[in-house]
Amino acid sequence: MKGIEVIVDRTPADAEVAIRESLAAEGFGVLTEIDVAATLKAKLGIDRPPLKILGACNPTFAHRALELDPSVSLLLPCNVVVEAVEGGTRIAAADPRELMDDPMFAELAGEAAARLRVAVDRAAGRARPA
Amino acid sequence: MKGIEVIVDRTPADAEVAIRESLAAEGFGVLTEIDVAATLKAKLGIDRPPLKILGACNPTFAHRALELDPSVSLLLPCNVVVEAVEGGTRIAAADPRELMDDPMFAELAGEAAARLRVAVDRAAGRARPA
Repeated sequence: MKGIEVIVDRTPADAEVAIRESLAAEGFGVLTEIDVAATLKAKLGIDRPPLKILGACNPTFAHRALELDPSVSLLLPCNVVVEAVEGGTRIAAADPRELMDDPMFAELAGEAAARLRVAVDRAAGRARPA
Repeated sequence: MKGIEVIVDRTPADAEVAIRESLAAEGFGVLTEIDVAATLKAKLGIDRPPLKILGACNPTFAHRALELDPSVSLLLPCNVVVEAVEGGTRIAAADPRELMDDPMFAELAGEAAARLRVAVDRAAGRARPA
Protein backbone atom coordinates (compact mmCIF):
# COMPACT_ATOMS: atom_id res chain seq x y z
CA MET A 1 0.00 0.00 0.00
CA LYS A 2 0.99 3.57 -0.56
CA GLY A 3 1.51 5.72 2.51
CA ILE A 4 1.55 9.44 3.19
CA GLU A 5 5.27 9.70 2.95
CA VAL A 6 8.45 11.60 2.46
CA ILE A 7 12.16 10.77 2.34
CA VAL A 8 14.29 13.01 4.54
CA ASP A 9 18.02 13.56 4.63
CA ARG A 10 18.31 12.63 8.31
CA THR A 11 19.21 9.59 10.35
CA PRO A 12 16.30 7.36 11.41
CA ALA A 13 16.80 8.52 15.02
CA ASP A 14 16.56 12.20 14.05
CA ALA A 15 13.62 11.53 11.76
CA GLU A 16 11.80 9.76 14.58
CA VAL A 17 12.25 12.75 16.89
CA ALA A 18 10.95 15.06 14.16
CA ILE A 19 7.88 13.01 13.30
CA ARG A 20 6.98 12.45 16.95
CA GLU A 21 7.04 16.22 17.49
CA SER A 22 5.01 16.98 14.42
CA LEU A 23 2.47 14.24 15.14
CA ALA A 24 1.98 15.69 18.61
CA ALA A 25 1.39 19.12 17.09
CA GLU A 26 -1.42 17.58 15.02
CA GLY A 27 -2.98 15.89 18.05
CA PHE A 28 -1.57 12.39 17.51
CA GLY A 29 0.04 10.67 20.45
CA VAL A 30 2.42 7.79 19.83
CA LEU A 31 0.91 4.96 21.86
CA THR A 32 3.04 2.07 20.65
CA GLU A 33 6.47 1.49 19.18
CA ILE A 34 7.94 -1.57 17.51
CA ASP A 35 11.61 -1.72 16.64
CA VAL A 36 11.20 -4.19 13.78
CA ALA A 37 14.91 -4.48 13.05
CA ALA A 38 15.69 -5.29 16.69
CA THR A 39 12.78 -7.74 16.91
CA LEU A 40 13.79 -9.67 13.79
CA LYS A 41 17.40 -9.73 14.98
CA ALA A 42 16.37 -11.06 18.38
CA LYS A 43 13.80 -13.58 17.15
CA LEU A 44 15.25 -14.76 13.84
CA GLY A 45 18.88 -13.59 13.89
CA ILE A 46 18.25 -11.53 10.77
CA ASP A 47 20.10 -8.29 10.06
CA ARG A 48 18.15 -5.63 8.24
CA PRO A 49 18.20 -1.84 7.96
CA PRO A 50 16.58 0.17 10.77
CA LEU A 51 12.77 0.05 10.72
CA LYS A 52 10.45 1.26 13.43
CA ILE A 53 6.67 1.25 13.47
CA LEU A 54 5.03 3.90 15.64
CA GLY A 55 1.34 3.57 16.50
CA ALA A 56 -0.15 7.06 16.35
CA CYS A 57 -3.58 7.90 17.66
CA ASN A 58 -5.60 11.08 17.73
CA PRO A 59 -8.10 10.33 20.51
CA THR A 60 -10.83 12.53 19.03
CA PHE A 61 -10.61 10.86 15.63
CA ALA A 62 -10.40 7.42 17.23
CA HIS A 63 -13.50 8.05 19.30
CA ARG A 64 -15.45 9.34 16.30
CA ALA A 65 -14.40 6.33 14.24
CA LEU A 66 -15.39 3.87 16.98
CA GLU A 67 -18.77 5.56 17.28
CA LEU A 68 -19.32 5.09 13.55
CA ASP A 69 -18.28 1.43 13.59
CA PRO A 70 -16.77 -0.43 16.57
CA SER A 71 -14.96 -2.82 14.25
CA VAL A 72 -12.60 0.00 13.27
CA SER A 73 -10.63 -1.06 16.36
CA LEU A 74 -9.13 -3.69 14.06
CA LEU A 75 -7.44 -0.83 12.18
CA LEU A 76 -6.24 1.41 15.02
CA PRO A 77 -3.78 3.00 15.73
CA CYS A 78 -2.41 4.58 12.58
CA ASN A 79 1.02 3.22 11.70
CA VAL A 80 3.82 5.69 11.11
CA VAL A 81 6.91 3.97 9.78
CA VAL A 82 10.46 5.30 10.12
CA GLU A 83 12.79 3.35 7.88
CA ALA A 84 16.35 3.69 6.65
CA VAL A 85 16.40 3.83 2.85
CA GLU A 86 18.91 4.79 0.21
CA GLY A 87 19.39 8.53 0.44
CA GLY A 88 18.09 8.96 3.96
CA THR A 89 15.06 7.95 5.97
CA ARG A 90 11.53 7.29 4.83
CA ILE A 91 8.75 8.57 7.07
CA ALA A 92 5.44 7.05 6.01
CA ALA A 93 2.01 7.15 7.62
CA ALA A 94 -0.68 4.66 6.70
CA ASP A 95 -3.36 6.52 4.77
CA PRO A 96 -6.64 6.40 6.70
CA ARG A 97 -8.54 6.86 3.41
CA GLU A 98 -7.13 3.54 2.17
CA LEU A 99 -7.51 1.69 5.46
CA MET A 100 -11.04 2.90 6.16
CA ASP A 101 -12.38 2.77 2.66
CA ASP A 102 -16.04 2.49 3.61
CA PRO A 103 -17.88 5.67 2.52
CA MET A 104 -19.14 6.20 6.07
CA PHE A 105 -15.57 7.03 7.10
CA ALA A 106 -14.87 9.33 4.16
CA GLU A 107 -15.07 12.65 6.01
CA LEU A 108 -13.22 11.46 9.08
CA ALA A 109 -10.53 9.63 7.12
CA GLY A 110 -10.04 12.70 4.96
CA GLU A 111 -9.53 14.94 8.00
CA ALA A 112 -7.12 12.48 9.60
CA ALA A 113 -5.18 12.09 6.34
CA ALA A 114 -4.85 15.85 5.99
CA ARG A 115 -3.38 16.13 9.48
CA LEU A 116 -0.99 13.25 8.87
CA ARG A 117 0.12 14.94 5.64
CA VAL A 118 0.87 18.12 7.59
CA ALA A 119 2.76 16.14 10.24
CA VAL A 120 4.86 14.25 7.69
CA ASP A 121 5.64 17.40 5.72
CA ARG A 122 6.56 19.31 8.85
CA ALA A 123 8.93 16.54 9.91
CA ALA A 124 10.55 16.98 6.52
CA GLY A 125 10.93 20.71 7.07
CA ARG A 126 8.45 21.51 4.33
CA ALA A 127 6.03 23.47 6.46
CA ARG A 128 6.38 25.91 9.31
CA PRO A 129 5.11 25.04 12.75
CA ALA A 130 1.75 26.65 13.47
CA MET B 1 -14.15 -4.76 8.52
CA LYS B 2 -14.90 -8.29 9.61
CA GLY B 3 -12.37 -9.93 11.88
CA ILE B 4 -11.52 -13.51 12.77
CA GLU B 5 -13.62 -13.50 15.88
CA VAL B 6 -15.51 -15.18 18.63
CA ILE B 7 -17.58 -14.10 21.62
CA VAL B 8 -16.63 -15.84 24.85
CA ASP B 9 -18.39 -16.06 28.17
CA ARG B 10 -15.48 -14.62 30.13
CA THR B 11 -14.43 -11.27 31.49
CA PRO B 12 -12.22 -9.15 29.22
CA ALA B 13 -9.29 -9.74 31.60
CA ASP B 14 -9.70 -13.53 31.43
CA ALA B 15 -10.22 -13.42 27.68
CA GLU B 16 -7.01 -11.43 27.30
CA VAL B 17 -5.02 -14.02 29.23
CA ALA B 18 -6.50 -16.79 27.08
CA ILE B 19 -5.84 -15.12 23.73
CA ARG B 20 -2.29 -14.14 24.70
CA GLU B 21 -1.55 -17.78 25.54
CA SER B 22 -3.09 -19.14 22.38
CA LEU B 23 -1.40 -16.51 20.19
CA ALA B 24 1.94 -17.52 21.71
CA ALA B 25 1.21 -21.16 20.92
CA GLU B 26 0.76 -20.15 17.26
CA GLY B 27 4.01 -18.17 17.19
CA PHE B 28 2.55 -14.69 17.65
CA GLY B 29 4.11 -12.45 20.25
CA VAL B 30 2.12 -9.51 21.59
CA LEU B 31 4.40 -6.55 20.92
CA THR B 32 2.06 -3.70 21.74
CA GLU B 33 -1.00 -3.06 23.85
CA ILE B 34 -3.41 -0.14 23.86
CA ASP B 35 -6.06 0.18 26.55
CA VAL B 36 -8.49 2.18 24.42
CA ALA B 37 -11.03 2.66 27.19
CA ALA B 38 -8.38 4.03 29.56
CA THR B 39 -6.90 6.24 26.84
CA LEU B 40 -10.23 7.78 25.88
CA LYS B 41 -11.07 8.31 29.55
CA ALA B 42 -7.73 10.02 30.18
CA LYS B 43 -7.69 12.15 27.03
CA LEU B 44 -11.35 12.95 26.46
CA GLY B 45 -13.06 12.10 29.77
CA ILE B 46 -15.25 9.57 27.95
CA ASP B 47 -16.53 6.43 29.63
CA ARG B 48 -16.90 3.38 27.43
CA PRO B 49 -16.85 -0.41 27.85
CA PRO B 50 -13.46 -2.11 28.13
CA LEU B 51 -11.56 -2.29 24.84
CA LYS B 52 -7.96 -3.29 24.36
CA ILE B 53 -5.99 -3.58 21.16
CA LEU B 54 -3.09 -6.03 21.21
CA GLY B 55 -0.49 -5.89 18.44
CA ALA B 56 0.40 -9.48 17.56
CA CYS B 57 3.35 -10.39 15.40
CA ASN B 58 4.69 -13.69 14.14
CA PRO B 59 8.30 -12.76 13.29
CA THR B 60 8.60 -15.34 10.50
CA PHE B 61 5.44 -14.15 8.77
CA ALA B 62 6.43 -10.52 9.28
CA HIS B 63 9.85 -11.10 7.74
CA ARG B 64 8.39 -12.94 4.75
CA ALA B 65 5.84 -10.17 4.21
CA LEU B 66 8.49 -7.44 4.40
CA GLU B 67 10.62 -9.33 1.88
CA LEU B 68 7.67 -9.43 -0.52
CA ASP B 69 6.89 -5.74 -0.11
CA PRO B 70 8.51 -3.39 2.41
CA SER B 71 5.42 -1.19 2.48
CA VAL B 72 3.60 -3.92 4.39
CA SER B 73 5.14 -2.29 7.46
CA LEU B 74 2.20 0.10 7.24
CA LEU B 75 -0.06 -2.84 8.15
CA LEU B 76 1.94 -4.55 10.92
CA PRO B 77 1.44 -5.83 13.58
CA CYS B 78 -1.85 -7.72 13.41
CA ASN B 79 -4.48 -6.23 15.71
CA VAL B 80 -6.21 -8.52 18.15
CA VAL B 81 -9.07 -6.77 19.90
CA VAL B 82 -10.49 -7.76 23.28
CA GLU B 83 -13.74 -5.96 23.89
CA ALA B 84 -16.61 -6.17 26.38
CA VAL B 85 -19.86 -6.82 24.53
CA GLU B 86 -23.32 -7.94 25.51
CA GLY B 87 -23.09 -11.55 26.56
CA GLY B 88 -19.37 -11.63 27.24
CA THR B 89 -16.18 -10.58 25.52
CA ARG B 90 -15.39 -10.36 21.84
CA ILE B 91 -11.97 -11.53 20.76
CA ALA B 92 -11.29 -10.45 17.20
CA ALA B 93 -8.15 -10.61 15.07
CA ALA B 94 -7.77 -8.48 11.96
CA ASP B 95 -7.89 -10.80 8.96
CA PRO B 96 -4.56 -10.67 7.09
CA ARG B 97 -6.38 -11.71 3.90
CA GLU B 98 -8.41 -8.52 4.03
CA LEU B 99 -5.55 -6.26 5.09
CA MET B 100 -3.04 -7.61 2.59
CA ASP B 101 -5.37 -8.08 -0.33
CA ASP B 102 -2.69 -7.97 -3.02
CA PRO B 103 -2.43 -11.41 -4.70
CA MET B 104 1.29 -11.55 -3.93
CA PHE B 105 0.39 -11.94 -0.25
CA ALA B 106 -2.30 -14.56 -0.80
CA GLU B 107 -0.36 -17.61 0.39
CA LEU B 108 1.24 -15.86 3.36
CA ALA B 109 -1.97 -14.11 4.43
CA GLY B 110 -3.82 -17.41 4.21
CA GLU B 111 -1.31 -19.14 6.46
CA ALA B 112 -1.37 -16.31 8.98
CA ALA B 113 -5.18 -16.22 8.96
CA ALA B 114 -5.35 -19.96 9.59
CA ARG B 115 -3.10 -19.65 12.62
CA LEU B 116 -5.07 -16.69 13.97
CA ARG B 117 -8.26 -18.72 13.53
CA VAL B 118 -6.73 -21.53 15.59
CA ALA B 119 -5.58 -19.06 18.26
CA VAL B 120 -8.99 -17.38 18.53
CA ASP B 121 -10.83 -20.71 18.66
CA ARG B 122 -8.47 -22.09 21.26
CA ALA B 123 -8.99 -19.00 23.43
CA ALA B 124 -12.69 -19.78 23.21
CA GLY B 125 -12.09 -23.36 24.32
CA ARG B 126 -13.08 -24.73 20.94
CA ALA B 127 -9.87 -26.57 20.22
CA ARG B 128 -7.42 -28.56 22.27
CA PRO B 129 -3.89 -27.30 22.77
CA ALA B 130 -1.43 -29.10 20.52
